[in-house]
Amino acid sequence: MEVVIASTNKGKISEIRKILSGLEIEILSLDDFSQIPTIIEDGCTFEENAVKKATAISKLTGKVTLADDSGLEVDCLNGAPGITSARFGGDGLNDAERNQKLLELLKEVSDGERKARFKCVLAIACPDGKINTVCGECQGLISLEVRGNQGFGYDPIFIPDGYSKTFGELGGEIKDKISHRARALFRAREVLLEIIQKVKQK
Amino acid sequence: MEVVIASTNKGKISEIRKILSGLEIEILSLDDFSQIPTIIEDGCTFEENAVKKATAISKLTGKVTLADDSGLEVDCLNGAPGITSARFGGDGLNDAERNQKLLELLKEVSDGERKARFKCVLAIACPDGKINTVCGECQGLISLEVRGNQGFGYDPIFIPDGYSKTFGELGGEIKDKISHRARALFRAREVLLEIIQKVKQK
Repeated sequence: MEVVIASTNKGKISEIRKILSGLEIEILSLDDFSQIPTIIEDGCTFEENAVKKATAISKLTGKVTLADDSGLEVDCLNGAPGITSARFGGDGLNDAERNQKLLELLKEVSDGERKARFKCVLAIACPDGKINTVCGECQGLISLEVRGNQGFGYDPIFIPDGYSKTFGELGGEIKDKISHRARALFRAREVLLEIIQKVKQK
Repeated sequence: MEVVIASTNKGKISEIRKILSGLEIEILSLDDFSQIPTIIEDGCTFEENAVKKATAISKLTGKVTLADDSGLEVDCLNGAPGITSARFGGDGLNDAERNQKLLELLKEVSDGERKARFKCVLAIACPDGKINTVCGECQGLISLEVRGNQGFGYDPIFIPDGYSKTFGELGGEIKDKISHRARALFRAREVLLEIIQKVKQK
């Protein structure tokens, strides 16, 4: 069975590939299709955006599609950047510039008041219109400075609970066990296993 | 009313004085008495030791006595150093040497597996034989290296949950709000207020 990952973010695609390895599926990404239009993420929640992307891409490709919407919620920013995580601070910024911008914003926020969490919602859409969503969270805090260069996005400024290092320092081996996306993907695996089973029974 | 702090540890006495300030009590320490014998802490729990010390000193001085027993429990060491925290690694060691010893012991323990908690039990004994105990905990983890020089004991290698700095870096203002001893002392305040009230009514 082929499954399309509805993303062009190389960091996300690589994490998803690793955690879904071992399933009897062939993973495709949007790069494997020509002329797929960009799906505008104009929902109010991670879930709305993930469902919208998965449904649209599944219709266009005729294949089971997994879409991710995820982001960082910072308590002292009242949950921002949230669903705007990927474009927070301006569309033209790269990850490093975005991290600097967030640290600058928290300059006066003392250690102990920097609670945050990564959230991930995955939607799995089937060509017959059926859709499932699963979610995952990772609690932690925003570090006082950029640390480490592994991962992507906000990884170098996020310290997961129970650790003293950032995801940027900890690297993939640990992130793929405890991250928001990893936790959501463990649940997505179960959903995909059921779909594989049903396809086989037909 | 006079209250004896059954300790000679200057760090502990100073923390207790600060958090109990404002109560209508005069705080004495063991240094205010001559010929008080050392009470052997041979109990199996923080509570046993605190009760033993408070009861003995209250009998000897004829005054309300507050005794502290506290320590650090490290999960991957099966709860050690625990009640032996103050003499862990050898009686002759100073705080810095003891911290190095503990870090050395955890050298192979990866970030994320270094969960620990400070525990404090306070016993308040009255000359009439009545005794109350209160406790406080502070969850956190053991840092990868010594950081900061404030506080005492294991403070420079303990990162409280929700913070990225150690107690050694955070200093008294924060420690006096969230530490195991602070939390126990907030409860001890209530007990002392009741005792003060009773003494006044006599």
